[in-house]
Amino acid sequence: MQTRAEALGVVLRPHMKTAKSRNVARLVGADRITVSTLKEADYFAEAGFRDILYAVGMAPGKVSHAAALCRAGVQLTVVTDSVEAALAIGAQAVAEGGVLPVLVEIDTDGHRAGVKPEEDRLIGVGQAIHASAGLRLAGVMTHAGESYNCTTPEAIIAMAEQERAGAVRAAERLRAAGLPADVVSVGSTPTALFASSLNGVTELRAGVYMFQDLVMAGLGICRPEEIAVSVLATVIGHQSDKHWVITDGGWMALSRDRGTASQAIDQGYGLVCTEAGDILPDVLVLSANQEHGIIAARPGTAPLDLERFPVGSRVRILPNHACATAAQHGAYLVVEEGATIEAIWPRLNGW
Amino acid sequence: MQTRAEALGVVLRPHMKTAKSRNVARLVGADRITVSTLKEADYFAEAGFRDILYAVGMAPGKVSHAAALCRAGVQLTVVTDSVEAALAIGAQAVAEGGVLPVLVEIDTDGHRAGVKPEEDRLIGVGQAIHASAGLRLAGVMTHAGESYNCTTPEAIIAMAEQERAGAVRAAERLRAAGLPADVVSVGSTPTALFASSLNGVTELRAGVYMFQDLVMAGLGICRPEEIAVSVLATVIGHQSDKHWVITDGGWMALSRDRGTASQAIDQGYGLVCTEAGDILPDVLVLSANQEHGIIAARPGTAPLDLERFPVGSRVRILPNHACATAAQHGAYLVVEEGATIEAIWPRLNGW
Repeated sequence: MQTRAEALGVVLRPHMKTAKSRNVARLVGADRITVSTLKEADYFAEAGFRDILYAVGMAPGKVSHAAALCRAGVQLTVVTDSVEAALAIGAQAVAEGGVLPVLVEIDTDGHRAGVKPEEDRLIGVGQAIHASAGLRLAGVMTHAGESYNCTTPEAIIAMAEQERAGAVRAAERLRAAGLPADVVSVGSTPTALFASSLNGVTELRAGVYMFQDLVMAGLGICRPEEIAVSVLATVIGHQSDKHWVITDGGWMALSRDRGTASQAIDQGYGLVCTEAGDILPDVLVLSANQEHGIIAARPGTAPLDLERFPVGSRVRILPNHACATAAQHGAYLVVEEGATIEAIWPRLNGW
Repeated sequence: MQTRAEALGVVLRPHMKTAKSRNVARLVGADRITVSTLKEADYFAEAGFRDILYAVGMAPGKVSHAAALCRAGVQLTVVTDSVEAALAIGAQAVAEGGVLPVLVEIDTDGHRAGVKPEEDRLIGVGQAIHASAGLRLAGVMTHAGESYNCTTPEAIIAMAEQERAGAVRAAERLRAAGLPADVVSVGSTPTALFASSLNGVTELRAGVYMFQDLVMAGLGICRPEEIAVSVLATVIGHQSDKHWVITDGGWMALSRDRGTASQAIDQGYGLVCTEAGDILPDVLVLSANQEHGIIAARPGTAPLDLERFPVGSRVRILPNHACATAAQHGAYLVVEEGATIEAIWPRLNGW
């Protein structure tokens, strides 16, 4: 992703919401980062990160937390998409005696939050931020989360261009109104990897690329062999008449995320590998209870030979959605080849 | 549930897999408990609980962990459903120098693990356990998880009877073969509350009743007003054209569980209440990203008046599935009336 950002002429600001790990942040060579909670900002700030974008709309009740980070030497940039919120967080920032850099969140895909690039109120939001003594208008940001729902490479390329063009257009409108908009921040792993150009963009955000997952594989973003995170489960029984293998890896370990259910290839609750990591392409976690996984052949293929999965043996399960699965665990057990744990990398959870 | 167990003439062994909290275990007056992981067993053992059922099929690799609990004075009962597993865990138990009580897991609903009550191999499994110097055959257990998929009270009553009759029949067959089967353990919150009789049963397991949730409400097990756990989220913005309220309560806080999607009333990612806990019956979390929730009117009802949800205001969200939602958090903030936090109760996560 670093190479990709350099080729596109933008700065990479990796999103740590997937990995939530200092070790992973160091591994990807991040100096500036993106986070999804202020607890993540604290965690990375304590590890020395000094340039952090909190990419979820700022609430007034969180300004004192943000101000404490700023006083500790962190440049914490926040986002908002309304005059109402800008006034409220600005007033709080003044009360805290600090100045928070703010990006206007732009909605380029109708997915969730943000001002549309052509909306009249964009200028009003920018002016409200610019006029506040507690805020500094730094630019715009957008996230084309809808790229996860694309079904062809062409659709992702088009979504990447829509994300780029919308963000650049919003920044141009702010500048034409006499407002500063130095930062133009875009990104999602799919659009980052498929964008034809990022002209006018200054920085790129992406997170799930650090691990990849089956949803990304389904989008053609990676191959399943490239997925870097898996859940190790133990076989605890069989249901011979149904050709089921029962494991102790249920949805608590895998998460409830069924992100591949809407894709061309439904991977159930995950694709099964040997303990050594060799993918068994037609073996899925078909169903999951809290601490039970049911492994079976992919529907429409030959039933499993249960003797391949004796009680006590172990399998690795590749996740649908790395962000959701990793969040069910408190640490990463790092393996290079085989089963030797080379290191344990803690991760952050909660708020 | 305690009253219910007494009325049915059985002992209650609450399942702590939902709450995973010592405070909640003490509140429900549990002395004997059920757990879903050995880490839970450790956690409750350290708090003085001495009679624990680990209700997920035992793997041979976990026997040394179980033996350590036994040496610490815990009666830890485990379950299995195959000769293969019984031989493997028996051999490990002998190597550890201990004797593990074992229940044969019975499959009364086709839901996941277990030997069917009439299967020939039931006796073989019982004999394998009974013959092992490292195991003690204590009886049978079953869990009619399929009760969660019932659509009428009559269906739950029938499922409760199927669960009871299957477990009792399996115990009778073991006894007729000259094997001990003192314990007949059944339960799920729906079947526990709807069972007409538990004749022949000795103990009842249930867990989600401690909190209840929208899936249970959809089954008629509780009213939404009785749900005792909620997620507090803050409004961070609006999308006026879509009548959406955007909050910072996404699927990371709510879980990905969409258990009501298959029920008569789909509650989205959760039913919305005021901060004080008053239910807004037609306001749902319609969609969720990792740290964003989209709140909107229930499909088919009038659009939301967004002025009721200003930026910075807070809402409570009742969960589809308490086990899944609670697991996304490290502690419970205990409130009686209003917003004053009376206590913080830690909970256990992970393995």
